[in-house]
Amino acid sequence: MTNTQITLVQLDNYGPWTVTPNPRREVDLQTLQSRLYADLSQLFGTRDGYVFFTRFDNMVAVTNGVDAEDHARIQESIRNRYPVTVSLSTATAPSPADALAHATARLQEEGSAQDEDRTEALLGAPLEDDERTDDDLQIAHFDVNDATGEYTDELDAFSTFIHIEQAYASLMRHMHEEHDSLSFFVGGDNIIAICPAMDAAAYRDAIDAVRDDTGVDLKVGVARGATAHDAGMGAKHALEVCREEGTVVEFE
Amino acid sequence: MTNTQITLVQLDNYGPWTVTPNPRREVDLQTLQSRLYADLSQLFGTRDGYVFFTRFDNMVAVTNGVDAEDHARIQESIRNRYPVTVSLSTATAPSPADALAHATARLQEEGSAQDEDRTEALLGAPLEDDERTDDDLQIAHFDVNDATGEYTDELDAFSTFIHIEQAYASLMRHMHEEHDSLSFFVGGDNIIAICPAMDAAAYRDAIDAVRDDTGVDLKVGVARGATAHDAGMGAKHALEVCREEGTVVEFE
Amino acid sequence: MTNTQITLVQLDNYGPWTVTPNPRREVDLQTLQSRLYADLSQLFGTRDGYVFFTRFDNMVAVTNGVDAEDHARIQESIRNRYPVTVSLSTATAPSPADALAHATARLQEEGSAQDEDRTEALLGAPLEDDERTDDDLQIAHFDVNDATGEYTDELDAFSTFIHIEQAYASLMRHMHEEHDSLSFFVGGDNIIAICPAMDAAAYRDAIDAVRDDTGVDLKVGVARGATAHDAGMGAKHALEVCREEGTVVEFE
Amino acid sequence: MTNTQITLVQLDNYGPWTVTPNPRREVDLQTLQSRLYADLSQLFGTRDGYVFFTRFDNMVAVTNGVDAEDHARIQESIRNRYPVTVSLSTATAPSPADALAHATARLQEEGSAQDEDRTEALLGAPLEDDERTDDDLQIAHFDVNDATGEYTDELDAFSTFIHIEQAYASLMRHMHEEHDSLSFFVGGDNIIAICPAMDAAAYRDAIDAVRDDTGVDLKVGVARGATAHDAGMGAKHALEVCREEGTVVEFE
Repeated sequence: MTNTQITLVQLDNYGPWTVTPNPRREVDLQTLQSRLYADLSQLFGTRDGYVFFTRFDNMVAVTNGVDAEDHARIQESIRNRYPVTVSLSTATAPSPADALAHATARLQEEGSAQDEDRTEALLGAPLEDDERTDDDLQIAHFDVNDATGEYTDELDAFSTFIHIEQAYASLMRHMHEEHDSLSFFVGGDNIIAICPAMDAAAYRDAIDAVRDDTGVDLKVGVARGATAHDAGMGAKHALEVCREEGTVVEFE
Repeated sequence: MTNTQITLVQLDNYGPWTVTPNPRREVDLQTLQSRLYADLSQLFGTRDGYVFFTRFDNMVAVTNGVDAEDHARIQESIRNRYPVTVSLSTATAPSPADALAHATARLQEEGSAQDEDRTEALLGAPLEDDERTDDDLQIAHFDVNDATGEYTDELDAFSTFIHIEQAYASLMRHMHEEHDSLSFFVGGDNIIAICPAMDAAAYRDAIDAVRDDTGVDLKVGVARGATAHDAGMGAKHALEVCREEGTVVEFE
Repeated sequence: MTNTQITLVQLDNYGPWTVTPNPRREVDLQTLQSRLYADLSQLFGTRDGYVFFTRFDNMVAVTNGVDAEDHARIQESIRNRYPVTVSLSTATAPSPADALAHATARLQEEGSAQDEDRTEALLGAPLEDDERTDDDLQIAHFDVNDATGEYTDELDAFSTFIHIEQAYASLMRHMHEEHDSLSFFVGGDNIIAICPAMDAAAYRDAIDAVRDDTGVDLKVGVARGATAHDAGMGAKHALEVCREEGTVVEFE
Repeated sequence: MTNTQITLVQLDNYGPWTVTPNPRREVDLQTLQSRLYADLSQLFGTRDGYVFFTRFDNMVAVTNGVDAEDHARIQESIRNRYPVTVSLSTATAPSPADALAHATARLQEEGSAQDEDRTEALLGAPLEDDERTDDDLQIAHFDVNDATGEYTDELDAFSTFIHIEQAYASLMRHMHEEHDSLSFFVGGDNIIAICPAMDAAAYRDAIDAVRDDTGVDLKVGVARGATAHDAGMGAKHALEVCREEGTVVEFE
């Protein structure tokens, strides 16, 4: 069984800020959002966590091994360097989807994402060290078969993007509805999914569903680990085996 | 009629680099990609262009007003500061989709995205000043009606994300197929579309199509301008009018 | 004769901010300061200006060719992405020292650096295009002779640093007192000086004075240009000639 | 007694890189250097270490509590995101100056700073946890008395800078020669010194020496701690006491 610790990162009252007193320059917003995401990637990543940009104003982090003090420091570091602040809400569950649902519910109880008075909420109790095991996380790393040969070098860049995006939209929904998983596009033709203890058949079903739905062929490497980095790096190695062997699902 | 200048930004041989000699740490790739995007946003943005992160290894920029020398300098600045290089291919057409298709084709002729010997291609001829007009660009800024009240504060964060993502996947496809437009998710519940000279009825159709397809209600502000910033800022102001007036389509 | 346009960049009320309500974490301040400097380097640099970090809360930019609208946009971009704001004050004079003195005086008239009510001052009138010439700026690029062989590879890192720092402290003072120049340490063993129309003999005197004062041997490349980038790049090339020829002063 | 762990961070073969094949644009070098420094500040800082920019191509970090694995990961993270690599050499001694001298000597034995074949050296053994104590570090935070009122608001910006710089050059030399301390300018009018177990009289002497030498009046807060952050934050609080009480030397 997995035991996934998820932290929801929500920018406080961000929407109104972007248009007050007037709409802010889009390139500055894009720069702010992507740098804030990069910094969170480093701050959680240096503790072996992963962060996904998701909607940028609501990001999802996988934080097994990141304790309460670390969360507080990350929140402080953002406050010290950005014109916006973040709320952090953490929850743990065997199902990644449940963990994020609990984390979201706790934060919603504190107030709206656009509540001026709800700033820097810091909620939830990260796992204690003695509650953690070496296979708390299962991560699946998907990519598109021969994306460069089939798409990037063949179609115009937007048509390629549409194919990748439709495949992602299909996979994210299937994996959430059927398998309580959280799937994130991470650039190129790569999707990383945070999963419960799924087996190879379940991944094969997901790949079939996406092919049926969108015509895009995926493959996937899967691994377990104590942290997002451990499981995620194992999944990358397993995906390399798929590439070398021409297989579709590989477990580390 | 519009006259959209598009620049395709493609990282050179990036996929192989990410796994050579072994897969690189995901958080470092995420940091690299998002900072490179942020820098391009500033570099093009300071000349009133827009960049969209798209797949991160293939980004799309709207570059009316950015000349050949500027492109060369942007390419040089990335080379001086990153472990990867970028190729830039520029084309112009009344239809944004055509412009990107031409820019892609030119780059593909030079070699594959994974060709080790094709680095720092710099292709295409930006518009001369005397070829430009004040309404060369039409930009539409969409968002989700009451996204915070309907989704962010009500559903768990991933379910909200799924709704936004399905709406985006639907809109990007519809706008490309029906209207030769390039639509990009820019965070939160916002989508920016680079369009030809569409009228209000066409935007209403797009919004209806997305509602039928996904159940998500959009509204949109639209504006024309000589540069992405000019048109984009006009679209933001028009979207503010939608918010104030409760309307669904507003032109600046 | 030179005609140097200098912009003083002053963080608004920064000192109090760093200790309110309690002293902020030093590494966050260091990160904030160095990234703000990096961004200003890009924002001015993309318009061929130079910025020097100086004291970080007061930076000096050489801005020939950067107009009033550019200054306003740079100020706005910082406001949109940082928790602090900047005031900008610009002045022009044949003497770089005079230009900075005028820019400082204008800003001081508006209020103290720690005046809560003086935020985002934007002062001074940049040069009009028809007032500019191709040799408005003279830039000198100094470095230490064989710094790696004499110091970095021989002494411990702090002793090397002391030598470099004493040489810089000596040069900056001499060049300011004797030649109305503004000299800035830019890393490694490099010092860039913004000068009036000095001749080779004057640079030789400066190098002699630093050797007498500190025992450190410098050499220098000098060039003129319409912008900081033009003059600065010329100076770099002239310094390369010094390296190849074993000379001490070279003009482009 | 203190037990200071110092890590020398040296960019590999950086000087030649900056001029190969031609001198690189200065603003890009400035951006690269200051962002690399900012990233190291965060990477060490998240583990309670401090980094000082020093010469940018040679940086000094105070790394008590940062272990061998952390150092390796920091080195890897830079390689993954920058066009340059870093060597890291760590040593520990009661005297900060000795620790840095040892770290430098170890790195010099591996090859020159401009040796193409010496890349990513990773040297020295950080302290084990059971070798560490709560007062391994002593940090002193100096600033200039009423720098804003005496200098920033009164003199032109370069004259102020000269005063601050001369005071720093004097203090760094005095503290190194007399007290085996490593002093670093950190922006504004602030200097942070890594010290052995000095007493209040020794700090008073240092302040007197700087006043005699340069006419600039300093004050200082001092604290001990297990990490750079602990000692450094204590020193900041002690300096606040100086400000409130009008005193010149305060120990936490």
